[in-house]
Amino acid sequence: MKVRVGINGYGTIGKRVADAVLMQRDMILAGVTKTKPNFEARVAKQKGIRVYAASADRLQAFSDAGMEVHGTLEDLLREVDIIVDCTPGKVGATYKPLYEKYKVKAIFQGGEKHDVAGFSFNAVCNYDGALGRDLVRVVSCNTTGLCRSLYAVDKAFGIRKARAVLIRRGADPSEDKKGPINSILPDPVGIPSHHGPDIQKVLPNIDITTSAFAVPTTLMHIHWLNLDLQKDATESEIVSILSKYARIKVVPASEGIDSTAQVIEYARDLGRRRYDMPELVIFKESIKSFGREIYLTQAVHQESIVVPENIDAIRAMTNLCNTAEESMRMTDESLGLGGT
Amino acid sequence: MKVRVGINGYGTIGKRVADAVLMQRDMILAGVTKTKPNFEARVAKQKGIRVYAASADRLQAFSDAGMEVHGTLEDLLREVDIIVDCTPGKVGATYKPLYEKYKVKAIFQGGEKHDVAGFSFNAVCNYDGALGRDLVRVVSCNTTGLCRSLYAVDKAFGIRKARAVLIRRGADPSEDKKGPINSILPDPVGIPSHHGPDIQKVLPNIDITTSAFAVPTTLMHIHWLNLDLQKDATESEIVSILSKYARIKVVPASEGIDSTAQVIEYARDLGRRRYDMPELVIFKESIKSFGREIYLTQAVHQESIVVPENIDAIRAMTNLCNTAEESMRMTDESLGLGGT
Repeated sequence: MKVRVGINGYGTIGKRVADAVLMQRDMILAGVTKTKPNFEARVAKQKGIRVYAASADRLQAFSDAGMEVHGTLEDLLREVDIIVDCTPGKVGATYKPLYEKYKVKAIFQGGEKHDVAGFSFNAVCNYDGALGRDLVRVVSCNTTGLCRSLYAVDKAFGIRKARAVLIRRGADPSEDKKGPINSILPDPVGIPSHHGPDIQKVLPNIDITTSAFAVPTTLMHIHWLNLDLQKDATESEIVSILSKYARIKVVPASEGIDSTAQVIEYARDLGRRRYDMPELVIFKESIKSFGREIYLTQAVHQESIVVPENIDAIRAMTNLCNTAEESMRMTDESLGLGGT
Repeated sequence: MKVRVGINGYGTIGKRVADAVLMQRDMILAGVTKTKPNFEARVAKQKGIRVYAASADRLQAFSDAGMEVHGTLEDLLREVDIIVDCTPGKVGATYKPLYEKYKVKAIFQGGEKHDVAGFSFNAVCNYDGALGRDLVRVVSCNTTGLCRSLYAVDKAFGIRKARAVLIRRGADPSEDKKGPINSILPDPVGIPSHHGPDIQKVLPNIDITTSAFAVPTTLMHIHWLNLDLQKDATESEIVSILSKYARIKVVPASEGIDSTAQVIEYARDLGRRRYDMPELVIFKESIKSFGREIYLTQAVHQESIVVPENIDAIRAMTNLCNTAEESMRMTDESLGLGGT
């Protein structure tokens, strides 16, 4: 059995999830929607992906641009078992009634509230909870990155208290109208940022306080973590634990991977499409232990880190695969994740 | 009695200290040195400041540029009671033998090691220790900012443990050859950054761990602080304590002062010369209490925060004034610091 997947919204996340779906042997990419006949739509068509207009009133624009489409979102919804909503934050929720009308399962992204799906997903943390569900929300890039490392450390050593400072990229590389250009923005000024409560939707037992700051860069987010543990952990034990996870890359600053720009240069040298880095990157030398109190610094590629989670969510919701380990192995192998 | 002050190095810090010295009734600015006949030297002369070449081999360049100087650094040293070394980091120490040869007291900046002076200074923390000293080091901008808030909180509530994340401006506004342009750099990757040990040179009883990250912005540094206290503190108590210090400005994000860019816009609207903000800026709404654990976010104007400390260091070393309170009051009044 192959699952037929549609993608509503072919932007930063949507085009990456589409590429990933194309690489799964148990999935078929039925098509994607676009609001505008822009270069992304044209490249999708050149790659043989079926493009649908986001709504009927968008058809004329595609026609005017000489770009043939296969119909509208509603036509796509008739063709699929599951839709991955990759529309902009807060827009996804407005589509929920339509997805329900066509009786398709739906995955929302982290820009939507938890309640839109009633279940917030991270593959290694709570895959089983998504089995057979009709609605799932894949948490945001920052929350996904934090879930991966917190889960790994919590499972091995127990986390009593977590404090995290997020230094956020201000905009994605292509978002040339967003800022800041020259400022550091507490985002928000108050404590906590929304990430702490969001993590607790996935890992309810983690006591965490988060603060976030937006800065003028486009490449990746940085997270500084301070963790009080339930038992002692040495630095080499932590490295050993984290390195077991294919979606975590512990990288040596000693080899020059010591900033977000260097992580991206590494991804480019690895030949990663679009220089994506879906793995959570942890700087090895940032891992510091004071017994039961540890520190680490990690980097999150905001454009791609949630892509494997979307693929796993599809498998769980459609019961293509009933264990996290097996789904994640399939996803990671297909996407070439893990290894050094 | 007026103290005759010379300034070696008329760059980011030097020109600000020079302006501040000119505003003190108990000090005379004998002159400043420049290595090059650039626009800063020309503006200094236009303001009536005596300019000296940094060394004899620089005289020809000034002559070629048609810019008259009053001699060299050694000539200046014959004229002064105290020299404020504002040369680039690590360069200051190389001048120490010359300052000693001319028997002038010397103030170094935070780019030098503690040992160059044997005493690291922050006005509110340890003014008395600088009384009559021949050599003093004014700690760096980041350390100065941290000393101000840590001292205030420690005095009122006692600090058991401090954790700080510094989000550093990558370069000063005029440093157009420095980066990063598009990266977040752990600086360093390991724990701690040099700031923690540096603070302990001023406040030896503070248990603090610091991490630092450089980002692509020029305006200010941001510090995130997490403090374990010896007794409970409410948010309003903390605001009340911090607001008592003229060199700390507690600003309301609710009025739109919610990023480094907005702090600078505020300084510009206040009519501050060069948009300087020598006060430590603390965002009121960032002050969060969980009883004995508190959080706050502060902004540090790297170009100007050490200027009042340099003025106070001059007074302490030359015994112009024997109490911190009196010296700081004179400095703050002359520079227009404090208030809202």
